[in-house]
Amino acid sequence: MKKHNFSAGPCILPKSVMQKASEAILNFNDLNLSLIEISHRSKDFVDVMENARNLSLELLGLQNKGYKALFLQGGASLEFLMVAYNLLEKKAAYLNTGTWANKAIKEAKMFGDLVEVDSSKDNNYNYIPKNYTIPNDADYFHLTSNNTIFGTQVNHFPKTDTKLVCDMSSDIFSRQIDFSQFDLIYAGAQKNMGPAGTTLVIVKEEILGKVSRNIPSMLDYQVHINKDSMFNTPAVFPIYVSMLTLEWLKDLGGISEIEKINTKKAELLYTEIDTNPLFKGFVADKEDRSKMNATFNLTNDNLKDQFDNLWKDAGINGLNGHRSVGGYRASMYNALSLESVQVLVDVMKELERKS
Amino acid sequence: MKKHNFSAGPCILPKSVMQKASEAILNFNDLNLSLIEISHRSKDFVDVMENARNLSLELLGLQNKGYKALFLQGGASLEFLMVAYNLLEKKAAYLNTGTWANKAIKEAKMFGDLVEVDSSKDNNYNYIPKNYTIPNDADYFHLTSNNTIFGTQVNHFPKTDTKLVCDMSSDIFSRQIDFSQFDLIYAGAQKNMGPAGTTLVIVKEEILGKVSRNIPSMLDYQVHINKDSMFNTPAVFPIYVSMLTLEWLKDLGGISEIEKINTKKAELLYTEIDTNPLFKGFVADKEDRSKMNATFNLTNDNLKDQFDNLWKDAGINGLNGHRSVGGYRASMYNALSLESVQVLVDVMKELERKS
Repeated sequence: MKKHNFSAGPCILPKSVMQKASEAILNFNDLNLSLIEISHRSKDFVDVMENARNLSLELLGLQNKGYKALFLQGGASLEFLMVAYNLLEKKAAYLNTGTWANKAIKEAKMFGDLVEVDSSKDNNYNYIPKNYTIPNDADYFHLTSNNTIFGTQVNHFPKTDTKLVCDMSSDIFSRQIDFSQFDLIYAGAQKNMGPAGTTLVIVKEEILGKVSRNIPSMLDYQVHINKDSMFNTPAVFPIYVSMLTLEWLKDLGGISEIEKINTKKAELLYTEIDTNPLFKGFVADKEDRSKMNATFNLTNDNLKDQFDNLWKDAGINGLNGHRSVGGYRASMYNALSLESVQVLVDVMKELERKS
Repeated sequence: MKKHNFSAGPCILPKSVMQKASEAILNFNDLNLSLIEISHRSKDFVDVMENARNLSLELLGLQNKGYKALFLQGGASLEFLMVAYNLLEKKAAYLNTGTWANKAIKEAKMFGDLVEVDSSKDNNYNYIPKNYTIPNDADYFHLTSNNTIFGTQVNHFPKTDTKLVCDMSSDIFSRQIDFSQFDLIYAGAQKNMGPAGTTLVIVKEEILGKVSRNIPSMLDYQVHINKDSMFNTPAVFPIYVSMLTLEWLKDLGGISEIEKINTKKAELLYTEIDTNPLFKGFVADKEDRSKMNATFNLTNDNLKDQFDNLWKDAGINGLNGHRSVGGYRASMYNALSLESVQVLVDVMKELERKS
């Protein structure tokens, strides 16, 4: 039975990518060797790394603008720390939009003064704060573009002279924005890019080297840049699959094309949430709704078992909400088809008919 | 044509492991979902993680002895830093046996006084220093059990009351030693365990929590222990393949069985190096020779092209030595068959006949 995978991450990747990845485990580039048993210094893998780095910059429109792309390890969680290690001299400003923003704040506090410019904690993070002021003596301003757990997404980035750092783990490559407004972007691969185990970091090289502390080699962006993202053995398989996914996205027409599909998927589901009396959305303000993760609840909790059985029977997977929000979360990353969203909407309509 | 893969790492893994890994990319546990698209919090993956952690301790004979096994990211290179962050309060002692030991020393120096108890740098690391003294006020003593680049291996570990920390990246699970003499063992997966992208850390929990500095979450072993090695999204695929490889090793009879095969392979190759007048070993003292990585040179450099063509024609891969040693390096990790070593030896004999 066909599965409709709405998992929040690790999550669905394109079928053709899975097929190529599976084949490369047995025989990579017709070498008669597995992708995972060759040297990371071999030309075959160096090409993968360079291709993945170049595709990232190309898709984001950041080629020849002073940015470097790195594929590191440790997920966004290690970036929380690396950002501060590399950029925080005295003071940093953070916007608190949920769980991951909080984790980023916690790690950064060890390295300097931290200003939380605003927070939506007062309403369990069901909106994006908007009327905040960034202190003009901050070394950088950090925000999370999409909040996977709460289903909110930033649609207006601040115009500021302060360096802009953004955790885009759950919506990078999903929508067209002016990426050159950011000085540093990072994203764990396991949403729109690839399997868990690698993190994309895009950094404007000129912002580095300004802090006075010593930085351990593995935490120093400049060290990784100087070694073309091969300072130590990289996570070969996750990077290869990321490259395949970026190639798939490029072949599809790039971010502007996938954004059209993502918008259709989100409109289809949110329309049902708004018109079906059995459901209500979690996010307070419609303009803050995430196109990647739609969070919603039943208006009548007694229907829970019935709804759960319906979507499970339809082959839907990964629809349970995060424990801090409850209810349901439909993650609609790039590789999820409109058809899968239609299956979910049909199930919601069926519940309405039957109840 | 069958390949004989002598790569130094990433390196050969068992054929049956590759087959299962390739299948899991398309359909894992008959879920009709890929291993890499399911939640790392799903029961199916939590079982993988627990199985991998338990197998590690079981194979090393460290169950129920106060040790915890973690599968982290960042390779041994991040451990160079984490070891010092977590254990170095005032002074640490290191044995310098080559490139990787030097890298470990460099990172640790940022966190306290560092005593290099001895070094084989005077002879390009072609032996293991033996008559050193560990200062009794050191927080720990660190050594590298096998030096991949130089082809040396530690065969006698010091009896000491100082905490013992060992980088076993390139020989863990290859030979039976009393692993309980160590307080902390770490190893990048990409030799005897799995693909690049995960690092096994085995730590005696009681040694943690003794330093006065604040440790960032991602660098804190205790944080990872408290979350059962799932503090953040782990490197799903590399951990799964490591689990498969550890299962393969257990089914084979464990470390004592693989050690017999590894000994046979090493004896076969070193005997040829010692008896064939066209070759000489790099390591000064035979007792320091590594069973994992045999480093050797031609006695007559003019035969280089002829030898290179012979082994390439025989399907051999990855035999070139590291640039800091030159010559050749035959890496004979657990998954390399005796047959592959025989092919190499036959080629060496053929060169002798023909020249």
